[in-house]
Amino acid sequence: MRKGELTRERIVAEAAPIFNRQGFAGSSMQDVMEATGLEKGGLYRHFRSKEELAAESFRYALAQAVKLRTDKVDRSHGVVEHLQSIVKRFVETPSAVPGGCPLMNTAIDADDGNPVLRALVKKGFSEWRARLCVVIEKGIGSGEIAQETQPRIVANTMIATLEGALMMSRLEGTKTALQDAQTTLDSLLEGIRNSVNKATEC
Amino acid sequence: MRKGELTRERIVAEAAPIFNRQGFAGSSMQDVMEATGLEKGGLYRHFRSKEELAAESFRYALAQAVKLRTDKVDRSHGVVEHLQSIVKRFVETPSAVPGGCPLMNTAIDADDGNPVLRALVKKGFSEWRARLCVVIEKGIGSGEIAQETQPRIVANTMIATLEGALMMSRLEGTKTALQDAQTTLDSLLEGIRNSVNKATEC
Repeated sequence: MRKGELTRERIVAEAAPIFNRQGFAGSSMQDVMEATGLEKGGLYRHFRSKEELAAESFRYALAQAVKLRTDKVDRSHGVVEHLQSIVKRFVETPSAVPGGCPLMNTAIDADDGNPVLRALVKKGFSEWRARLCVVIEKGIGSGEIAQETQPRIVANTMIATLEGALMMSRLEGTKTALQDAQTTLDSLLEGIRNSVNKATEC
Repeated sequence: MRKGELTRERIVAEAAPIFNRQGFAGSSMQDVMEATGLEKGGLYRHFRSKEELAAESFRYALAQAVKLRTDKVDRSHGVVEHLQSIVKRFVETPSAVPGGCPLMNTAIDADDGNPVLRALVKKGFSEWRARLCVVIEKGIGSGEIAQETQPRIVANTMIATLEGALMMSRLEGTKTALQDAQTTLDSLLEGIRNSVNKATEC
């Protein structure tokens, strides 16, 4: 890798937590200059504008989050267990980049503003939903998940509940909201298991 | 009411959507001056700082949201139906002040920053959870809700799911995520109904 590319990557890695914590409006190129030790000219040689750097920082933060949430998730048991492992992973390791989930932070930051960030975060949610739907549909296909299950509803509920709970847990400084979300989602996912596969209850 | 108090109230009402949309760092006293038509001196006669105005604006936005979400919610049927009506109201009328839920916006805005706003938003979530717990506990007491139900888990899940879904719906510009959350929560609330009261299924 060329030196210029390395510098560019280092800037993005150091800018990502700044934008993730402080939001677009609350972050300045001055903050990034201080974090990286670069002069204004050095920074603008790599990024034409704060908008461009914010977009790159979001892409980086999202890629880190996706990696952290999907790498080596346990798929060795059934599809329901796989979905429960995805929930567990989110609850146990919610943030890859300091400042909480970049998707939620940027969604709130950009819902009334910055169209480039808004488009990127929309894509991020769509892809997350699509990844979950693939797993759920696989379970319907294999007969592990009840035929009448609507993948989008399950996927949207998982995402909404985890993101809302992460917001509450970060605010309240306790894991309670995330653990409560996990309890509920585990039970919801148990509920979509095809009943022929359900453990017999006496 | 004295003229000074009226002016103060008008400033807060006009500043609330600005802070709710743009966040604390993204809002300036200049923005509020432009919205109210007041000069700098006029604004600072009522509020010593942006912090003070932001705190008052949050209190106002939250009070409006609570009013919109609780006023005349249908309590004429059972406790489960009352909880489902609370969900329905949130899904149908999510924002009292333009810019989305002031609790979520301020939570994301303040989780790494402003301690005054952070304390106010923590209190807002605590009170919301407490209001829901009162309803759930009433249902447990009356035998309408299953004895083993844990009110805090149900309340946290309702709040997390609704807030997360509102964030997604606002971002995506469709009601789908909120409607999916309603479908799931309706079913979850049906599930905590005391089984002696459940409709017989054939």
